[in-house]
Amino acid sequence: MKAKIEAANQEAATRILKAKPTLVNVSTAGDAIPGMKKNMILHAGPPVSWERMCGPMQGAIIGGLLLEGLAKGREEAEALAASGDIVFEPCHHHSAVGPMAGVVTWSMPVWVLENKTFGNRAYCTLNEGLGKVLRYGAFSEEVIARLKWMAEELAPTLREALSKHGEIDMKTMIAQALQMGDEGHNRNRAGTSLFIRELAPDLVRLDRDRDKIAEVFAFMHGNDHFFLNLTMPSCKCTVDPGADIEGSSVIVTMARNGTDFGIRVSGLGDQWFTGPASMVDGLYFPGYSAKDAAPDIGDSVITETAGIGGFAMAAAPAIVKFVGGAPKDAIKFTKHMYDITVTENDVYQIPVLDFRGTPTAIDLIKVVETGILPAVNTGIAHKEPGIGMVGAGLVRPPEKCFHDALEAFVERYADYE
Amino acid sequence: MKAKIEAANQEAATRILKAKPTLVNVSTAGDAIPGMKKNMILHAGPPVSWERMCGPMQGAIIGGLLLEGLAKGREEAEALAASGDIVFEPCHHHSAVGPMAGVVTWSMPVWVLENKTFGNRAYCTLNEGLGKVLRYGAFSEEVIARLKWMAEELAPTLREALSKHGEIDMKTMIAQALQMGDEGHNRNRAGTSLFIRELAPDLVRLDRDRDKIAEVFAFMHGNDHFFLNLTMPSCKCTVDPGADIEGSSVIVTMARNGTDFGIRVSGLGDQWFTGPASMVDGLYFPGYSAKDAAPDIGDSVITETAGIGGFAMAAAPAIVKFVGGAPKDAIKFTKHMYDITVTENDVYQIPVLDFRGTPTAIDLIKVVETGILPAVNTGIAHKEPGIGMVGAGLVRPPEKCFHDALEAFVERYADYE
Repeated sequence: MKAKIEAANQEAATRILKAKPTLVNVSTAGDAIPGMKKNMILHAGPPVSWERMCGPMQGAIIGGLLLEGLAKGREEAEALAASGDIVFEPCHHHSAVGPMAGVVTWSMPVWVLENKTFGNRAYCTLNEGLGKVLRYGAFSEEVIARLKWMAEELAPTLREALSKHGEIDMKTMIAQALQMGDEGHNRNRAGTSLFIRELAPDLVRLDRDRDKIAEVFAFMHGNDHFFLNLTMPSCKCTVDPGADIEGSSVIVTMARNGTDFGIRVSGLGDQWFTGPASMVDGLYFPGYSAKDAAPDIGDSVITETAGIGGFAMAAAPAIVKFVGGAPKDAIKFTKHMYDITVTENDVYQIPVLDFRGTPTAIDLIKVVETGILPAVNTGIAHKEPGIGMVGAGLVRPPEKCFHDALEAFVERYADYE
Repeated sequence: MKAKIEAANQEAATRILKAKPTLVNVSTAGDAIPGMKKNMILHAGPPVSWERMCGPMQGAIIGGLLLEGLAKGREEAEALAASGDIVFEPCHHHSAVGPMAGVVTWSMPVWVLENKTFGNRAYCTLNEGLGKVLRYGAFSEEVIARLKWMAEELAPTLREALSKHGEIDMKTMIAQALQMGDEGHNRNRAGTSLFIRELAPDLVRLDRDRDKIAEVFAFMHGNDHFFLNLTMPSCKCTVDPGADIEGSSVIVTMARNGTDFGIRVSGLGDQWFTGPASMVDGLYFPGYSAKDAAPDIGDSVITETAGIGGFAMAAAPAIVKFVGGAPKDAIKFTKHMYDITVTENDVYQIPVLDFRGTPTAIDLIKVVETGILPAVNTGIAHKEPGIGMVGAGLVRPPEKCFHDALEAFVERYADYE
């Protein structure tokens, strides 16, 4: 049994390493995402009903309904959300990922990533910035106005520039960013910088109003997390071909909806295994503290699932100023992750560890055997709808989902020779 | 005596720490550099006659004379250079610094940096890129054409954009780059990226041809060393107020002309102490080897003099792919430098060393007492004029200049109570 599982895990890991995530287009959720509907809202994490959703996710859904013109105010939106007329589905069920609340509605622009090795695609909205933003549960007029500008100006401008530029090899860009102090989840200053300089010559050549192009530059420049929404779908289309491999215990999804933390395992198909979303141990913005925090939320843990983010923190010691801890902890996190992964990335390397590849392809069996949980760093949303980001930190996933998944795995493969 | 020297060194170090290097303008050498003349050529390192100049410096001077229209071909340029009609002076005698050959002629564009704390200024040409470039001794038509484009298009465009943007605080930008895997001498990918994104909104707003602005973006994007020519004058205007302090043994200049390595000491005025320029221990471009190399050359060691570059290599472990060695060596270099410096920078920090400040203000006495020479990384020029860059590596300055300087220092301050 062991040899067959190992072979299956090698196959999953090999597929993950062979991925060539590539930015191919900027589109809209309605046009690009398979199965998207006008009355559908995608959200982060495993499936969850409106009633069980945490505050920031409810806030983001209120904002999404306002943005789409499906409701006129908070109460109307809440009533509509509770009415059963809106279909809620996880981003992960639609080849998509969303940071924090992860809310995706019909008209929102999305990055379109393609894994050139396997042909599969992944989708993610564009990053709004920090603070009062939809994905952290804010839905005020300024939030909706920004989302409209993103749909009407930002996305079309980037689409045109990308079309002039041609597809962008995200694997090389992420590899560079890892050598520049990013880890690709909560530190994306290098990636954002590399993306801006890559696209700049084509942006300036567009036959568009110069001031409006300047606003696009300024928006990206003003938000060091802009690149996160590119690493996430890059990681999503990287990991997806590792799913559905008979006998593989590689974890191919980790995601949280603010209520549950869920995982999916390659050899166990579409089944989610969940546990209660944890509280985040982090640094808070002035005026906020742990008592304001919502539990762990978002699909951004796809970065860790693909072997960067918390798994690559040794590449990004400066991140501790954002998520807490000391640089030596950042190095320790990465080193521990080698104990629960199948392989090391041959392109994503960590200079300070002698260019060792990042720990890649989490093995469920190793997680349970060692008791070492995946290292995850994350933003922190206010627990009430309508407020937004209050900090960032480190989080321990719940052990329960790993134990439940292993139990199911053992049962499923009980007669595996 | 010891206490007085220590107090003088503290004063020098404090002035260096208090510096606020700021990019204030793009001008030309003729307009901006004090004492510049049409028949004058500035060069890197301590003073050197045409006859004693190394190949790449002679090559760069030939190119400079061709660029200025003072000669029509190589032979005419060589004859003019040898005639005595051209005045050769070190950049350092004119508040300027130049990488590699460091050749500055009348019409060349220069960055103008101002130390806002003390009001002093420093100047440096704009970076041409790698390979076949003037500063590495190449002077072919393509080299001259690029320099003309830089004077006619690049510099005026950047000047206008900077004027729209307003002055740029270089200390903050360099501090950020150090947290993104740069060390500010031979790794400048982060700095270059940060500079591009900072200026992008203003560049696109210029009332200039879009294709020409796009060429400016593409030129900066295509050259990860673009930022070097900004860190250098930032460091020059940072260190200069530390000079001429009675009783201080702080080294305020290190520079090489490819023939001599020279230093100047705060308490010893304008006097240069020199030793033979060393050969560089490095990595070579395909087709080249150590036998092609010119000795150590350039004013770029101003970065180490100010406490970054080789002194901050722990911040930039990925640099070893460019200059050789292993990441642990990069960390070791920085750690050793604390033994020969007066203080630690309060703004330039190294995440992996628990955000310890970079070792700053080299003390001549400590260098000689410990036998630890300043850690310097550098590019390598071909020894013949007209060829260009062949590699990059690490170099040991000659011990002689430090010993000679200490002898002079002891003599000068013999009756120092």
